[in-house]
Amino acid sequence: MPQARTAILLVACADRPGLVCTVAEFIRSHCGNILYLEQHVDQDHRAFFMRIEWALDGFGLDERSLAPRFVKEVAEPLEMDWQLFTSDQRPRVAIFATKEGHCLYDLLSRHEAGELNVDIPLIIGNRTDLQSAAERFGIPFHHFPITKANKAAQEADEIALLEANGIDTIVLARYMQILSDAFVSRFPNRVINIHHSFLPAFIGAKPYHQAYQRGVKIIGATSHYVTADLDDGPIIAQDVISVSHRESVADFIRRGRDNEKTVLARAVYAHAQRKVLVFNNKTVVFS
Amino acid sequence: MPQARTAILLVACADRPGLVCTVAEFIRSHCGNILYLEQHVDQDHRAFFMRIEWALDGFGLDERSLAPRFVKEVAEPLEMDWQLFTSDQRPRVAIFATKEGHCLYDLLSRHEAGELNVDIPLIIGNRTDLQSAAERFGIPFHHFPITKANKAAQEADEIALLEANGIDTIVLARYMQILSDAFVSRFPNRVINIHHSFLPAFIGAKPYHQAYQRGVKIIGATSHYVTADLDDGPIIAQDVISVSHRESVADFIRRGRDNEKTVLARAVYAHAQRKVLVFNNKTVVFS
Amino acid sequence: MPQARTAILLVACADRPGLVCTVAEFIRSHCGNILYLEQHVDQDHRAFFMRIEWALDGFGLDERSLAPRFVKEVAEPLEMDWQLFTSDQRPRVAIFATKEGHCLYDLLSRHEAGELNVDIPLIIGNRTDLQSAAERFGIPFHHFPITKANKAAQEADEIALLEANGIDTIVLARYMQILSDAFVSRFPNRVINIHHSFLPAFIGAKPYHQAYQRGVKIIGATSHYVTADLDDGPIIAQDVISVSHRESVADFIRRGRDNEKTVLARAVYAHAQRKVLVFNNKTVVFS
Amino acid sequence: MPQARTAILLVACADRPGLVCTVAEFIRSHCGNILYLEQHVDQDHRAFFMRIEWALDGFGLDERSLAPRFVKEVAEPLEMDWQLFTSDQRPRVAIFATKEGHCLYDLLSRHEAGELNVDIPLIIGNRTDLQSAAERFGIPFHHFPITKANKAAQEADEIALLEANGIDTIVLARYMQILSDAFVSRFPNRVINIHHSFLPAFIGAKPYHQAYQRGVKIIGATSHYVTADLDDGPIIAQDVISVSHRESVADFIRRGRDNEKTVLARAVYAHAQRKVLVFNNKTVVFS
Repeated sequence: MPQARTAILLVACADRPGLVCTVAEFIRSHCGNILYLEQHVDQDHRAFFMRIEWALDGFGLDERSLAPRFVKEVAEPLEMDWQLFTSDQRPRVAIFATKEGHCLYDLLSRHEAGELNVDIPLIIGNRTDLQSAAERFGIPFHHFPITKANKAAQEADEIALLEANGIDTIVLARYMQILSDAFVSRFPNRVINIHHSFLPAFIGAKPYHQAYQRGVKIIGATSHYVTADLDDGPIIAQDVISVSHRESVADFIRRGRDNEKTVLARAVYAHAQRKVLVFNNKTVVFS
Repeated sequence: MPQARTAILLVACADRPGLVCTVAEFIRSHCGNILYLEQHVDQDHRAFFMRIEWALDGFGLDERSLAPRFVKEVAEPLEMDWQLFTSDQRPRVAIFATKEGHCLYDLLSRHEAGELNVDIPLIIGNRTDLQSAAERFGIPFHHFPITKANKAAQEADEIALLEANGIDTIVLARYMQILSDAFVSRFPNRVINIHHSFLPAFIGAKPYHQAYQRGVKIIGATSHYVTADLDDGPIIAQDVISVSHRESVADFIRRGRDNEKTVLARAVYAHAQRKVLVFNNKTVVFS
Repeated sequence: MPQARTAILLVACADRPGLVCTVAEFIRSHCGNILYLEQHVDQDHRAFFMRIEWALDGFGLDERSLAPRFVKEVAEPLEMDWQLFTSDQRPRVAIFATKEGHCLYDLLSRHEAGELNVDIPLIIGNRTDLQSAAERFGIPFHHFPITKANKAAQEADEIALLEANGIDTIVLARYMQILSDAFVSRFPNRVINIHHSFLPAFIGAKPYHQAYQRGVKIIGATSHYVTADLDDGPIIAQDVISVSHRESVADFIRRGRDNEKTVLARAVYAHAQRKVLVFNNKTVVFS
Repeated sequence: MPQARTAILLVACADRPGLVCTVAEFIRSHCGNILYLEQHVDQDHRAFFMRIEWALDGFGLDERSLAPRFVKEVAEPLEMDWQLFTSDQRPRVAIFATKEGHCLYDLLSRHEAGELNVDIPLIIGNRTDLQSAAERFGIPFHHFPITKANKAAQEADEIALLEANGIDTIVLARYMQILSDAFVSRFPNRVINIHHSFLPAFIGAKPYHQAYQRGVKIIGATSHYVTADLDDGPIIAQDVISVSHRESVADFIRRGRDNEKTVLARAVYAHAQRKVLVFNNKTVVFS
């Protein structure tokens, strides 16, 4: 069944009395029926966050007027950060991959099943191993091999390609290259990575080997927004699986893939549903 | 650190535009600062549910006027079901137990640690096996042996005792007697049971034996409000643990206890925090 | 890294003293080094199960002599059921699918990554929805539409095709047709199904709808061998995910897919590793 | 039902062909019926581990002769490390606690329910907060306040007390003092700690605060043997619970307790069942 179109509003601001009321009244006054409202107050920082979604059918403001009116009547007076979307505005996602294909296949088969609310105009690989995977799903594949010498130039070309395609979100699906700070700063809170450990444990290379070495009984995966600090960005989703002494590093790698796929897809889904807000290097993930 | 006193309002009604707004405006108009708001719309039944909590410090209505004013200005016009509490109104809980002590001990040690926001004025046993447990924690224990012949009379005495102690919530901590419909109907959505299976699988007696017989790889526990239909009341919380062919029924029973304790405590906690609403034999459990 | 070839022996028999010793001595006497041994005694039925794996490199019996010698010296005297494999004998798997592609894609991408120790010579669909998925992975797709009228004939043709391809294992990847008893009896403990509930809860059609209706807080998936009794065969693997009142049936379906994929793949993997024995409508799944 | 008495043998040695066979033959030759056998080969270090349990009823060696005969005939020729127990030899456990009572209560109520196969002759506290808990369960409580000045002397007195009571296992049930290396070295692989994080993440003080600060979506608990390196000993058991932005540090602490209790009890249970072997700062935990 086709979902009715909705407006989705995300706001963040200093906490004070009347915030829910003011926003809700703005919507009500234009005959909007709220379908979903979740708010959160960070008591430590007196910070307020809200996600609110209402039906556009019957809503009294035309869509072009909505944002300016909201800004003037609500956001500016209350000094709110805000984002406004309609439910049919799909994030435009570029997937970056290298040679491990499980996360890429998983995202593509979810996408094909209509499970992810995103468009995927292109896939970028620093190797060509996964070109055939892209082709199977009919998605253009671009090869950008990266060396120390060419990194700056290649990233500039990548950014040009991403901009030409209107990409707003990058998903690193086991992409084995570190993006430069310059690159990352172009997409703040818009580059989603999957790290194959339970962060902050086992930062950096070969986390399953590190986990095996330490003798842990559970291994994890973490999806986070990429920042300038390696593996230290705001965490969106994490999950774990149990392991035992019977399992080798190869078993960790094999079984961990399931976890990586699921955790990354969960993060991408939440992001695509406009359910993630970043504050203070942490996330609010609305439910 | 002592928590500031709050008011907690639970509402349920037919969905329509402006509900959040109207309630939030009522609170704002009396200078209340909302600390927590969660709402839910059951799209199938067009039903609206909300839990809203605000600081009483600085709130402009005195507490005696709050309920009558809310009813007159909001609840009656909008045909809302509502419940109103202050955060220091603690549920008064009677625990019913028989001979398995793990859930009882677990609740009592949580209570002693200040983890559960309840008072426990008394414990009722249909046997005396757990009298010493009650005494260790300094809580009066009442013995009501039940037979077919005396059940009606004993339950009448139990109800009298419960009412004399202002009990509003009953927790069946592996209580091995079925309460009569008459009893249950006195405490609608106020009798919390723990069933040692993943309902609706393995209803009735000896669920771990049934699970073992079926060869399941996971066993569960379910906490639910008791209704006239055995093991069929609204589910509040469920969880599971993995098992294998190596485990006997005795292992299921031993390991299942951990699950039962945790699931029951989670349900009691949510109930005590006024986070559970019942609708259509299902629960809304606010987060 | 290529794994060294091993022999894998599965045995089942009535329990009695000396079983481990006799089998281990048979292997040792031919200079075999045991890499893995796990046994299980079902105390209720006095039944013994063992899986034992040893390196073929340096083993003193040539492979043609191994089985006959084992039978004569060990299995017959001890009245053992036995199965003997080498690690490079891969199960030949036919996947049956209908229109939901998530399990099929998942298995194919695992297969392509070398994660599953199986060959997949063909895919059968009762519809053509997933033909393109099969083609993407270069695996022959065969369309067998099933009606009441043609079912017997179509199944006969399917069996002929399976036999012509040396298929020994059938995986029902959300295949929406019930196989006839005649069909199932041709592949005892060799047809693996995924049912999208936590069996024995929610047997039959639309289990997510049933789960939603009941208001459960956890939904499950179960992979089992198919027998003549619907959804009642020996369970190989189960897992669950948490849900809440916020989720619709559509959310259950979407999120449940992850669980179905993982649980089915886990069952296929265990089967392919020759780690599953069936006894008394239950499984022993070696670790 | 009373369990039949069994012998439990744990062995560790360099891997070589014939180990299972030799041990099993030793048992069989004295008419022992193996009830349980699990072995593990650490392929990296070519190390062999086995736990084997057999019925003493009908076993042909008297118990005094068993160990010397095993040593002479098997362990010495094969250069095995070994431990031999009978199932009714219960570990003698001293619990150390400070002021958080949840793990202590949990262990004591399990003990009282007959769930843990241990004796608990005494409880030691560096404060008196939990004296009443000990007394409720009728277990002697000893108060050893620790300061920098008196630590060496107090630990010497503790060791004298432990030895006088035949204590072989120490369980640190949220004990808020670091044991000296000298103390720990007296009980190698016999001091079990619970750390309230998913190690190696959040080592040291206030791990829930660290976790909150980092914004993780899952918090953990780890039970491990104590070594000279803080929080770095061999891990016996770990588990996690999901958290969200809605939860404060206080919520982490409250909800984490359930996890700590369960993980610690699981480790103590495995230890008491003689199912844990330590090798290379990791554990083999037989199932």
